[in-house]
Amino acid sequence: MKVYEFKGFANPARVRIALAEKGLFDKVEFIQVNVPAGEHRTPEFLAKNPSGVVPVLELDDGTQISESTAITEYLDQSAGEPTLTGKGAKERAYIHMRQRKIESGLLEAIGHYFHHATDGLGPQNYAHKNKEWGEYQKSVVLKTMKAMDDYLASNEYLAGDKFTVADITGMAGFAFCDFVKVETPAELKNLAAWKGRVFSRPSAAVAA
Amino acid sequence: MKVYEFKGFANPARVRIALAEKGLFDKVEFIQVNVPAGEHRTPEFLAKNPSGVVPVLELDDGTQISESTAITEYLDQSAGEPTLTGKGAKERAYIHMRQRKIESGLLEAIGHYFHHATDGLGPQNYAHKNKEWGEYQKSVVLKTMKAMDDYLASNEYLAGDKFTVADITGMAGFAFCDFVKVETPAELKNLAAWKGRVFSRPSAAVAA
Repeated sequence: MKVYEFKGFANPARVRIALAEKGLFDKVEFIQVNVPAGEHRTPEFLAKNPSGVVPVLELDDGTQISESTAITEYLDQSAGEPTLTGKGAKERAYIHMRQRKIESGLLEAIGHYFHHATDGLGPQNYAHKNKEWGEYQKSVVLKTMKAMDDYLASNEYLAGDKFTVADITGMAGFAFCDFVKVETPAELKNLAAWKGRVFSRPSAAVAA
Repeated sequence: MKVYEFKGFANPARVRIALAEKGLFDKVEFIQVNVPAGEHRTPEFLAKNPSGVVPVLELDDGTQISESTAITEYLDQSAGEPTLTGKGAKERAYIHMRQRKIESGLLEAIGHYFHHATDGLGPQNYAHKNKEWGEYQKSVVLKTMKAMDDYLASNEYLAGDKFTVADITGMAGFAFCDFVKVETPAELKNLAAWKGRVFSRPSAAVAA
């Protein structure tokens, strides 16, 4: 397997963490796509992912899978325990739901803040810019952090009592928040404790 | 099972189509949440889904699942053939990827256009408004339609040669486009043919 990525970016980090959690990290060849330099806009890369974003997983038979949750689902189902996306219809749906709420409310929102309210990747890589939208998304991030803290008052992880793909998305989201200097409010103590738990896992080290 | 929804809205339509495709439509009690009147903002509904949006699937044991793709995944895995989300790691990941591209590029984008560039659901239901963002999202919709047409030049459905959840998301997206009067460019003939195929399915009738 090959993974086209740009090390240090949030979505590639999700795939790196999933690979490490599944014991697959050493089975992958990582290929860097220099996004700040525009390598994601070449015809060669757009043939791999018409959306023009990293990461992309390329299987040995040439199949190319983009979208981080799709890649994670592939990795989870093609290797054994522990499962990151759950087992059985109900558990899988619950984890899927929790992941999606954190993806849209934290990770995508902080991405919008970065691209629209800061210098982001520069106009050559992200031509459309709307500062008000970016600033508004920061308020979405803070609201999501509060909802996550409330959830963690009675749950050890972001989708119940086991580490799952929802936690991976949360880790990538908070790493992105750190990068753009959006701090977690100090009163969100449950979130601070969760961060201590997940960022001490060995998988966190391979994503940074 | 109960489904909390508002009939005619795009995301509830996705769940209705999935239920019909899986032969589960008659096993569900539909409960209307009058979103234009603000019923999605009551404490009772927010307890079911803190995100404050429909649809929500409530299982007989009280488990509440929100997020349309999570609900569809539950329905797909809890009933038999035909599958909407695929079988095996590779097929499932491919369908997941295709669904997500159409969800973000078509359905979510036309939703942004509706909320931000038109009267939408009114300021009482959607206080934040950014007209430029909404107008930009219309360009995202049109770009996605072109990409879908390109894909359909060599595929019968939106994730290969079988009807899947990617097609359901596409159907909901185009119904939303019709509602807000964003027309599909006439030159996208593959898309027109696909629309003919999917909107003639019996499941399309229960969503309208």
